Amino acid sequence: MKRILVLGAGQLARMMALAGDPLRLHIRAYDVRTQTCIHPITEEIYADNLTDALKNIDVITAEFEHIAPDILQQCAATGRLFPNVKSILIGGDRRLEKKMLKQANIACAPFQVINTFDDLQHAVEHLKLPFILKSTLDGYDGKGQWRLHHRDEIASLWQTLVEFIAQSPQSKHQSILAESYIPFSRELSILGIRTQKGSHHYYPLTENLHQNGILGVSLVYPVSHSLQQQAQAIFDAIAQALNYVGVLAIELFQIDDRLLVNEIAPRVHNSGHWTQDGASISQFNAHLHAICDFPLPAIQTKGMSAMINIIGDAQVPDAVLQWGYCHWYHKTPDAGRKVGHINVCAQSVDELIFKMTQIQTHISAKAFPCLETAIQRLKDATKKPMEST
Amino acid sequence: MKRILVLGAGQLARMMALAGDPLRLHIRAYDVRTQTCIHPITEEIYADNLTDALKNIDVITAEFEHIAPDILQQCAATGRLFPNVKSILIGGDRRLEKKMLKQANIACAPFQVINTFDDLQHAVEHLKLPFILKSTLDGYDGKGQWRLHHRDEIASLWQTLVEFIAQSPQSKHQSILAESYIPFSRELSILGIRTQKGSHHYYPLTENLHQNGILGVSLVYPVSHSLQQQAQAIFDAIAQALNYVGVLAIELFQIDDRLLVNEIAPRVHNSGHWTQDGASISQFNAHLHAICDFPLPAIQTKGMSAMINIIGDAQVPDAVLQWGYCHWYHKTPDAGRKVGHINVCAQSVDELIFKMTQIQTHISAKAFPCLETAIQRLKDATKKPMEST
Repeated sequence: MKRILVLGAGQLARMMALAGDPLRLHIRAYDVRTQTCIHPITEEIYADNLTDALKNIDVITAEFEHIAPDILQQCAATGRLFPNVKSILIGGDRRLEKKMLKQANIACAPFQVINTFDDLQHAVEHLKLPFILKSTLDGYDGKGQWRLHHRDEIASLWQTLVEFIAQSPQSKHQSILAESYIPFSRELSILGIRTQKGSHHYYPLTENLHQNGILGVSLVYPVSHSLQQQAQAIFDAIAQALNYVGVLAIELFQIDDRLLVNEIAPRVHNSGHWTQDGASISQFNAHLHAICDFPLPAIQTKGMSAMINIIGDAQVPDAVLQWGYCHWYHKTPDAGRKVGHINVCAQSVDELIFKMTQIQTHISAKAFPCLETAIQRLKDATKKPMEST
Repeated sequence: MKRILVLGAGQLARMMALAGDPLRLHIRAYDVRTQTCIHPITEEIYADNLTDALKNIDVITAEFEHIAPDILQQCAATGRLFPNVKSILIGGDRRLEKKMLKQANIACAPFQVINTFDDLQHAVEHLKLPFILKSTLDGYDGKGQWRLHHRDEIASLWQTLVEFIAQSPQSKHQSILAESYIPFSRELSILGIRTQKGSHHYYPLTENLHQNGILGVSLVYPVSHSLQQQAQAIFDAIAQALNYVGVLAIELFQIDDRLLVNEIAPRVHNSGHWTQDGASISQFNAHLHAICDFPLPAIQTKGMSAMINIIGDAQVPDAVLQWGYCHWYHKTPDAGRKVGHINVCAQSVDELIFKMTQIQTHISAKAFPCLETAIQRLKDATKKPMEST
C-alpha cells in the first residue's frame, strides 16, 4: 500500500485514482487553486493543508504544470516528487521550455520572448508574419494565444497583451512568446515513460485534431517506422535532459518527414487517453508504475484507436456505448470545458472507420467538429497505409 | 448519470464501482449483514438505512446471493432490481437451484435433500458412496461442505450436520443437500450476459482450479467449439428460464465431452475477473451495461488469460507487476479470505506459460498451490491444443 498525493484535482487525478485503486495506491488530490485536499473520485474535501497532506505520503506527482514554484519546492523537499521540479517548471513556462529544447539541440519553431513594445516590433522584423503569440505561463487549451497577421495590428495587439499580463494571476512573472507559424502537415504527439532506473518505454504516435485550440480527436493508426523512431529519439533526448520520471507527453508538428517539438507536458496527457482501452497498460497505470518504482510491463497496443473529446454541453446518447467506451469526468458542462471522452478501438483502420461512422450518426456534427475530419484522415490512410515511409 | 445500489459491500461491489465511475454511474453498496450503506471505494459509511438508500436510486443489483427474501422483496418493489428476486433466491438456495435445473431439463449431479436422519440413510442407499453434502443456504468458498465416504460415518456426520444447522444464521430455513460425487475431468465456468431486451452474449469458457474449495486459478485458453456451444446452450436455457438480466455465471463439470451444471451464481463471478484485462469489456462493465439498459459492445477476448487469486496473507512482491495486473481488494488478510487477484494476459499459450512461470519465481508455492497445476494444464494444452474436438 502506498499513499500518493497528486498536485491538481481535475480529471487526470481522477483517472489516476481509478487506475491506482486496484494497485493498493491511496490517491489524494491537492487543488492548488483552492488549496484544499480532496478525494479525486468522491470529491470529498479533507481538512488538510499542504503541509498536513505531505505527511505520510510515499510519492507526490502532478496532473498539471501551472503550479507555483514554492509549492513545488515544498513537495520536492520530501525527496518524493516525480517528475522533478525542473520538469514541471519547464512544462509550465514556455521560456524555460524553449531554452531546454535549444540546449538539448531539439528542433522547434523559431521564437522570441516579448516583454516590451520594442520586443514586439523586433519580432515582426525577424519572424515571418503571420506569427503566433502565446502567454509564457498558464497557457492551455488555446487560452492565452493570439495571432499577428499584419503590421497595422501591432498597436492594438500590444494593448491586448498588456491587459492580459496585468490580469494574469502571476502577472509579475508573465510574459509573451512570439513563435513562427509552422506550416505543418499534421500535429502528432509521442507519450513515453521514463522509469526511476532510467529506462524508456513508448506508446505509438497519435495524430491530434484540434477545434478552437482544444484537442478534439486523437487517432492511433499505422505511421511510418522512421517517424516513430524520430519521435522516440526526441523523447529520449528530452526525458534524459530532464532526468524525468513518469509519463511525459511531447506535442509535435510534422513538416514533410520531419518532426518539430511544439510543446511538452510533464504529465499524463489528453492525447494518451486512448491507452485506457487501446493499450496493454494505460498511461495512468504506467505513470503510477514509474513514480512508485514498480516494474513496467511491456507496452502493447490492441490494434487501432481513436479518442473523441466531449467538450462543453455536447450530448452523447447511450447508443454510442455500443461502439465506444465513454469516460466521463463528472464535471459541470461549460463552454470549452472537457467533460469526458470516448475511446474507440478496432482491429483494423476499416473497422475503426466503421465504428466512428456509427458514433457519428448519434452525435451532433456541430458539437464534434473534428469527427468528420478524423474519419476522412483514416480513409486517406487506407489508401496510403504507411505514411511517409 | 444514474444512481445504483449494490446489495453486498465486498470486492465485487468495489470493482463494479471502479468500472461504473467512467460511465457516470454513482454506485453505493448496502452491506446486508451490518445493514449499512457505504461507498464501495472509500468505504465511507452513510447514515442511510435501506429505505433511505432506495430513494432516488435508478437501478438495484446484487454482488452476492445470500440475501434475506424480505430485503429482496423491498428492492423488487421499486421495479428496478436486476437480476430479479427469483434469480437471486435460486442462486442462494441449492434446493431451488436443483428444482430450476430439473424443470429446465439441464443435467446436474443426482441429489437428495436431507432434513432428517432418515433422509440421510435414504441418500446412502440411493446415491453412490462417497458423496458430498452441502448446506442449502449460505454456502460459498467450500464453507458448509462435507463428504461421506463410509456407512460407519453416518452417525457422527449427522451430529455435525445437526450442529451446523443449529448454528446457521437462517437455521429455520437451512437444510442439507446430498449430491453424488461427479468424477469430472475438469471444472469450467461460462459467464454470459442477458440484456433487458433478452439478447445473450458470452465470454469464453474458463477452466477453474480450486484449493480447499476456494478458486485458486482460472484459465482462458482454447477449448473445443462444441464445448463452448454446449455451455452457451446451458446458459441460454437457464438465463431464459429465469428471465435474467445482467451477468450470470454457471459453474460446470466436464465429464468426457459432456457438461453438467455444478451451480449458478446470479452475479459477476470470481472466474470472470480475467475479463478486466483480457476482454474488450469486463464483466463488471458488461453487468452495468445490462442492468442500466445500455447497448452492449461486442465481446472480444485479447488472446489467452489467467487469473490467480491472492488468498489470506499470501505475499506478492512488486516484481510480479512486470508480468501481471494486480487487483487488490483493500481487505485485511485472513485465512481463506480472497484479498486480491493477478490477471495475466498473453497472445499465445506459450507466452501465457512464460509469464506465469516468471510470476511463479516471485511467489511462494505454498501460498499459491494451484499455480503449478495451472502451468502444467497449459503445457498439456500446447501438446493437444483443441481439447475434446
